[in-house]
Amino acid sequence: MEKFIVTFLPINKSVSVLKDSTILSAAISADIFIASPCGGDGVCGRCKVVVKKGNVVMQSTGLLSDEEKNKGLCLACLSLVQSDLVVEIPQESAIDFEKVDSLELKKVYTDVEEIEPPEINAKEQALPISSLTEKIYLELPPPDLDDKVSDLERLLRQARLPANTNLTIIRSLSSLVRDADWKVTVTLVKQAEKADIINLEPGDTSKDNFGLSFDIGTTTLSGQLINLNTKKVLGTKVTYNKQASFGSDVITRIIYAREPDGLEKLHRLVVESMNQMIQELIHEHKVNLNDVTAVLCAGNTTMIHLLLRIDPTHIRKEPYVPTVNFLPIMRAHEAGIKINPHGVLFCVSGVASYVGGDITAGVLSCGIYKEKDLSVLIDIGTNGEIVLGNEEFLIACAASAGPAFEGSGVSCGMRATRGAVQKVTLDKDFNIVYSTIAQAKAKGICGSGYIDLISQMLMMGALDKDGKIKPIKHKRIRETDLGREFIVVFKEDTDSSSDIVINDVDIENLKRAKAAIYSATSSLIRHMGLDFSQVNKIFIAGGFGTSLDMDSAISIGLLPDLDRNKFIFVGNSSLAGARQMILSEDARKTADQIAHKMTYFELSVDAGYMDEYMAALFFPHTDLNKFPSVSGNL
Amino acid sequence: MEKFIVTFLPINKSVSVLKDSTILSAAISADIFIASPCGGDGVCGRCKVVVKKGNVVMQSTGLLSDEEKNKGLCLACLSLVQSDLVVEIPQESAIDFEKVDSLELKKVYTDVEEIEPPEINAKEQALPISSLTEKIYLELPPPDLDDKVSDLERLLRQARLPANTNLTIIRSLSSLVRDADWKVTVTLVKQAEKADIINLEPGDTSKDNFGLSFDIGTTTLSGQLINLNTKKVLGTKVTYNKQASFGSDVITRIIYAREPDGLEKLHRLVVESMNQMIQELIHEHKVNLNDVTAVLCAGNTTMIHLLLRIDPTHIRKEPYVPTVNFLPIMRAHEAGIKINPHGVLFCVSGVASYVGGDITAGVLSCGIYKEKDLSVLIDIGTNGEIVLGNEEFLIACAASAGPAFEGSGVSCGMRATRGAVQKVTLDKDFNIVYSTIAQAKAKGICGSGYIDLISQMLMMGALDKDGKIKPIKHKRIRETDLGREFIVVFKEDTDSSSDIVINDVDIENLKRAKAAIYSATSSLIRHMGLDFSQVNKIFIAGGFGTSLDMDSAISIGLLPDLDRNKFIFVGNSSLAGARQMILSEDARKTADQIAHKMTYFELSVDAGYMDEYMAALFFPHTDLNKFPSVSGNL
Repeated sequence: MEKFIVTFLPINKSVSVLKDSTILSAAISADIFIASPCGGDGVCGRCKVVVKKGNVVMQSTGLLSDEEKNKGLCLACLSLVQSDLVVEIPQESAIDFEKVDSLELKKVYTDVEEIEPPEINAKEQALPISSLTEKIYLELPPPDLDDKVSDLERLLRQARLPANTNLTIIRSLSSLVRDADWKVTVTLVKQAEKADIINLEPGDTSKDNFGLSFDIGTTTLSGQLINLNTKKVLGTKVTYNKQASFGSDVITRIIYAREPDGLEKLHRLVVESMNQMIQELIHEHKVNLNDVTAVLCAGNTTMIHLLLRIDPTHIRKEPYVPTVNFLPIMRAHEAGIKINPHGVLFCVSGVASYVGGDITAGVLSCGIYKEKDLSVLIDIGTNGEIVLGNEEFLIACAASAGPAFEGSGVSCGMRATRGAVQKVTLDKDFNIVYSTIAQAKAKGICGSGYIDLISQMLMMGALDKDGKIKPIKHKRIRETDLGREFIVVFKEDTDSSSDIVINDVDIENLKRAKAAIYSATSSLIRHMGLDFSQVNKIFIAGGFGTSLDMDSAISIGLLPDLDRNKFIFVGNSSLAGARQMILSEDARKTADQIAHKMTYFELSVDAGYMDEYMAALFFPHTDLNKFPSVSGNL
Repeated sequence: MEKFIVTFLPINKSVSVLKDSTILSAAISADIFIASPCGGDGVCGRCKVVVKKGNVVMQSTGLLSDEEKNKGLCLACLSLVQSDLVVEIPQESAIDFEKVDSLELKKVYTDVEEIEPPEINAKEQALPISSLTEKIYLELPPPDLDDKVSDLERLLRQARLPANTNLTIIRSLSSLVRDADWKVTVTLVKQAEKADIINLEPGDTSKDNFGLSFDIGTTTLSGQLINLNTKKVLGTKVTYNKQASFGSDVITRIIYAREPDGLEKLHRLVVESMNQMIQELIHEHKVNLNDVTAVLCAGNTTMIHLLLRIDPTHIRKEPYVPTVNFLPIMRAHEAGIKINPHGVLFCVSGVASYVGGDITAGVLSCGIYKEKDLSVLIDIGTNGEIVLGNEEFLIACAASAGPAFEGSGVSCGMRATRGAVQKVTLDKDFNIVYSTIAQAKAKGICGSGYIDLISQMLMMGALDKDGKIKPIKHKRIRETDLGREFIVVFKEDTDSSSDIVINDVDIENLKRAKAAIYSATSSLIRHMGLDFSQVNKIFIAGGFGTSLDMDSAISIGLLPDLDRNKFIFVGNSSLAGARQMILSEDARKTADQIAHKMTYFELSVDAGYMDEYMAALFFPHTDLNKFPSVSGNL
């Protein structure tokens, strides 16, 4: 078949593709990331590119204005290559994979760290191993004629452990112990009731044992480097999940995984990002890669399948069954993760196709599994998950909220890092006071900033109940092709090349996200024959900011209108749970029990859910009686 | 450095080597096997070759007669290459690696099979798995909206097993179970209290599960193909261990393993032989290699180290410590053994550097660990091992006997296969009646034939007490360069190109072998403060024939002069034990207990052993009072 060369600007990268390939697939082949939250289905209109040279056939779409068409703009997913092309990717369509940057979010994680580690009524530990991996320094008595046990039995005897080992270690054993003058360090991982020796090193390296815990989100990856001896977190990184270029939610990723090499590509993208984070963390904290012996990952079920290159197809096919919820401890290299070549990988057990190990870890870290009173955990992510329960029961549901609260898929959104507008107040004249993370110049708006902003715009009359910016004549409000937009920070005050704005489409995205979360929560509570007033604590988790203004979140209808003291913001509870689990055998056992105990409630088969969702597509809600403390302010 | 081409005849194979290489090392590089029982130390004089063309420098030796030197004979290990060479390997120096041949030894193994499988007072089995690997056919209920457990949990639930698995299987799981319409077969291996799923196949393959048990001897490899469902032995093969070209005993092998690539080469030789046996067995019995899922090996400690490519150096260095006695279950491919790629390898636990898993397996199969009365197991191999004990205790020692009773290192020796002279009677006129294995034309003499022959020659006056052939004028007796020889079968009655003979050197080798075995046995019994009269049963094991004439063995002083009913010939007890172990979890547990329970007695530090040995270097013994039933016949 005929082939053509497609050259992408401004990076000037070329790729050869078959006639009738889409520009989007050409970009993917060239490892170029074009925003396409819908996964290339031609419905989101985000993958705009300019064809500078050559011919394309574009399928018809209502997502481009005539003006855009006249300027040569196409949707990459709908444009079929008919000749050699030169294609320019406008900045707004490029996914900005800036270098994984230092997270200035100490406070988020500090908040989380303040959560009590779970108390577990576990049986007394037979083994003194608590981290996922532990190094033990051993000084072996050299053999003599009165003590002739073999080298391996000598090692195990000194370690006082019933331990498995493997041929690689056995092969190195006799020369290693003798060259090291019988002073060696073993690295152990505990599995069930036995320990596995996974590594053997000469001398005493026991003080150098490090691990990484990850939260692998649909939109955001977070990782922490942890000293497994001191239990100190050395550093934390977040980055966007590069898979986002193949769809903003798990469904579009699962669809893409069916493409030729699709699964491999999605797998590679997440693993490469993790490896990059690992490299930067160990470099910054002067840790030797060989001393990193454990990785523990929390993630939703689809993310874990993709991480491990397990086909996720059946997650989205009725009856929605994942390949696996409970994974064994593996070797990190089996998943392509680069730490010590003998290092291990453990993934937190999940509950169901749409309630994964990230929620198990979240329940562990916020502790609702041991609450006497009824509690709720709301994890606001691209897939929003809600858990209801206490020490007696746990039930969870999931709702697709989209990535808006993570700052993705909204025009000036960004994740909660340096320069993100995180708090906003507005007066009646639309004068704005805002704060940014790390007090840096504003670069964009993170989730908590959007929640404040919409709340304030509602209260100050800039928005109608439906979320449309009112046609008020004001320097901050202007008309565009995408409807009205509201200027939050003028260009001159930003660290950006244009004004920081919020527009009608953004607000629509945020409204759908908040409606999904709120209606899922209320449906779950109703399903159990309860109402909000019976809930004692509501833990709010998510990576949308360093804190959350509960009044704002309630006034936009994201959270129910309850006593503000019932709300506890816990930040990234998945990452906090993952950290507890890499450090504690008890935490790992408890997480396993949580995953076994939690039941899954499928919202899509719930008769009332769609009605609840439709009713929540207003600010704060169709039924203002549900928001008594808010209605007076509107 | 200068290099020369060495060409070996009659096989006409050439190799390029550095100047001053030995001819033996040149042959090794060319994968040509020259007999060198001493491991190339220039002391055995067996590696005779003829230099037909070119120059060598030969280090001086008393091992060649002037006549031999005049004929151009050299010792390959002492001759240094100085130019391109053409070297002929005489038949007597070539190790005859004929194609692994069908063993006509059904009777040996039938004898062994008659031993009762061990009765074990084991706790009730939690898992219904008894073979080392077991296949279980599962029909899974397909998932529906009321039963949404993941594919893996569904599989484990149906298998009713707490089982580990691995990422390879998990990756294949979702498509495999659906393509197979939820009908699959899992292959399990039990480890400690858990089972591991090592393989997953579509459909019902549970009836096709096969394993191999091996006895890996210093001189001889024996292997059996076993149907793990029916517990039937399908076929048995024996072959010489090709490592013999690097020394006839474990010490010379260990020394060779220190050479560059030495360990790798020894490892490869045994694994290739095993793979060849496996190929021939599955071909003959129409078994698919993928259905072979388990290999279980019994072998002495050095052989197991070499099989697994574990450095054996310290086995022969004081204080004589092996790297490992108790090995984990491994994957067969880790050792290079070619069965199903997911198949497992287990090696029987050993006791000490010179008492290995072959003896553990032998004790298991002959059952002395559960005898009420004092019993002895004598395993007559290249390394002779003796175990003394009962249900209360087990103590073992080892003595280097050499390979003579296995038909190696003696002029017309052969292993106990078709055509081996296995029984001999002689009258006063030296008329011989003999029988061969499978009633084939005589090709050589196996161990039991030698024992009969020496016994008869002693009784009929052809040998003196020292083992020298008497200078009698008889057509069967003639002088040669190597001393006198006695013609057992004249060439015209043989399937050989020359007379089948026994000579003074052969008898000396056999005498040293029998003296080592007898004195080790008596030293062990004396060490325990016992004497032979207190021993109730003596199990005789070894691959030297299809049966053993106890009168002959006693009359040459190999075995003590006790009531003949106390002796039980058990053939290859290691192979029998290995077979029991591949079929029975109880047998594996018992073997482990045996290896833990057995203590090792180091003969070399025993004050009386050398005296006992010297006293036994006569037929039957210096002290005829020890052999009352024999002395009358001499």
